[in-house]
Amino acid sequence: MKLTILGCHSATPRAHHHPTSQVLEMKGHMFLIDCGEGTQVQLRKNKVKFSRIKHIFISHLHGDHFFGLVGLISTFRLLGREAELHVYGPKGIKEAITLQLKLGNSWTNFPLLFHELEQTSSEIIFEDDVVRVTTIPLDHRVYTNGFLFQEKEGLRKLNIEAAIEAKIDSSYFQKLKQGHDVKNREGVQISNETVTFSPEQPLSYAFCSDTVYYPQIVEQIKHATVLYHEATFLTSHEHLCEKTKHSTAEQAAKIAAMAGVGHLILGHYSGRYADLELFKEEAQVYFEEVALAGDGKVFEYD
Amino acid sequence: MKLTILGCHSATPRAHHHPTSQVLEMKGHMFLIDCGEGTQVQLRKNKVKFSRIKHIFISHLHGDHFFGLVGLISTFRLLGREAELHVYGPKGIKEAITLQLKLGNSWTNFPLLFHELEQTSSEIIFEDDVVRVTTIPLDHRVYTNGFLFQEKEGLRKLNIEAAIEAKIDSSYFQKLKQGHDVKNREGVQISNETVTFSPEQPLSYAFCSDTVYYPQIVEQIKHATVLYHEATFLTSHEHLCEKTKHSTAEQAAKIAAMAGVGHLILGHYSGRYADLELFKEEAQVYFEEVALAGDGKVFEYD
Repeated sequence: MKLTILGCHSATPRAHHHPTSQVLEMKGHMFLIDCGEGTQVQLRKNKVKFSRIKHIFISHLHGDHFFGLVGLISTFRLLGREAELHVYGPKGIKEAITLQLKLGNSWTNFPLLFHELEQTSSEIIFEDDVVRVTTIPLDHRVYTNGFLFQEKEGLRKLNIEAAIEAKIDSSYFQKLKQGHDVKNREGVQISNETVTFSPEQPLSYAFCSDTVYYPQIVEQIKHATVLYHEATFLTSHEHLCEKTKHSTAEQAAKIAAMAGVGHLILGHYSGRYADLELFKEEAQVYFEEVALAGDGKVFEYD
Repeated sequence: MKLTILGCHSATPRAHHHPTSQVLEMKGHMFLIDCGEGTQVQLRKNKVKFSRIKHIFISHLHGDHFFGLVGLISTFRLLGREAELHVYGPKGIKEAITLQLKLGNSWTNFPLLFHELEQTSSEIIFEDDVVRVTTIPLDHRVYTNGFLFQEKEGLRKLNIEAAIEAKIDSSYFQKLKQGHDVKNREGVQISNETVTFSPEQPLSYAFCSDTVYYPQIVEQIKHATVLYHEATFLTSHEHLCEKTKHSTAEQAAKIAAMAGVGHLILGHYSGRYADLELFKEEAQVYFEEVALAGDGKVFEYD
């Protein structure tokens, strides 16, 4: 699992401060999460192959999370894309994008499929054999979802030496991988766990931005491998959180601790702070495994 | 008159190739012309004070000319702007911008005034004591206008020594500047041109992008101080012009020559050309005073 931060700053884009966008590589998928203005340039700078992006998830319709989407879609068109593109985001996103394409008389040649979200409870929005994506309803100034990306548990791994030793015919190997007990060539029942290893532990990534401190999400993101949680402010500006519906680094760390996640990544910093290390220091009082997002930073997990 | 090129490349933004946007400073005004994605970052890089921009002119609704507008307007809002902002552009622009602001529940606190254009003949769209802005109808794949920015002729300049010599009372000086003849203290009629100098020659700037070769514009832009004309292709790709409704460097130069402008600036280059000097060489066969636009380049005229 590999996470590339394209942008992680709040509000207005600047030369070296890009608004929210991330690429998550999971089980062969390349998911784009949020798409602030300038995301297509950040994708190029970070050498992400445009054609590998088939699913884009938009948390909410504030400009710093979606103003780059229409430009990216237009570029896909100019590059002659043919593959389907799926966009998941709040109701209204389809009209906003299609209106602009229509005005430019530049409808896409590739299928552009919108999955508009309006539920306030969690729902599965994408699923295939290897991955499941679920919304994490958040509490922000407009309708907002985080997203939980979960690998599915894979097949068990064959202990090939033990299987031969146990005289199991190779035609049964697939059944063993699927977790079944089988009979060996002598008709003896062989218990699955004596000839297989457990599958790799599935990884998961919880993206939670933007939101006020919202402990209701803890249950859903419990034991996630990685949690990205917004930390717009330090505690010194906690009084701004309720009005703006943002969180502090301390609050993000408390969510991470309660959920018992493996790692916490902070981002969506307000432009008022020159020294981002303070976010890490503040969070580590409550949760040890903290990293700071940075534009262009890459995180890998296995 | 000062022109700052923020971006001058066609189609998709890249790390060092920005889509169309320019700032024209004329008689105290700071006009923003077109606003491709990333324009707000280019404005910051080029140290343009956001608060000085009060009028934005959008030629047409292709993404590389207007996808940066909604982000710029949002940033104005976040910066606490209070001054009016006037946006001139094709019909539909108001709906596209306001829909996105509405979806983000982030309407501006400052007056945002749209002047939607749909005439296919030239019209004056802005005028005050010192400047006039007129549309230049162009021929592109969608409804498109260029813009002609014209300084108005200023007051005549007083030849103060000659006026004293002619015994004219200073209370008549303003009348002299306005071009009137006056009587001196002895009741003798004094001819204006004997005691004043001609006003400065008013400057003008014609912005013409995007368009196919379109000689109909020549009459309107005749003797303009500066013409910016798109040159998407070299003549080697002239066969693409009719379908895409773009021009070659040669065609731009022919327009400049027919109109007898002072200077020609080329831009909107297709991404297929590595060596932009070829545009200049091609154009100079037909018109000598050619310059190449470049992102961040500044042109000054007086």
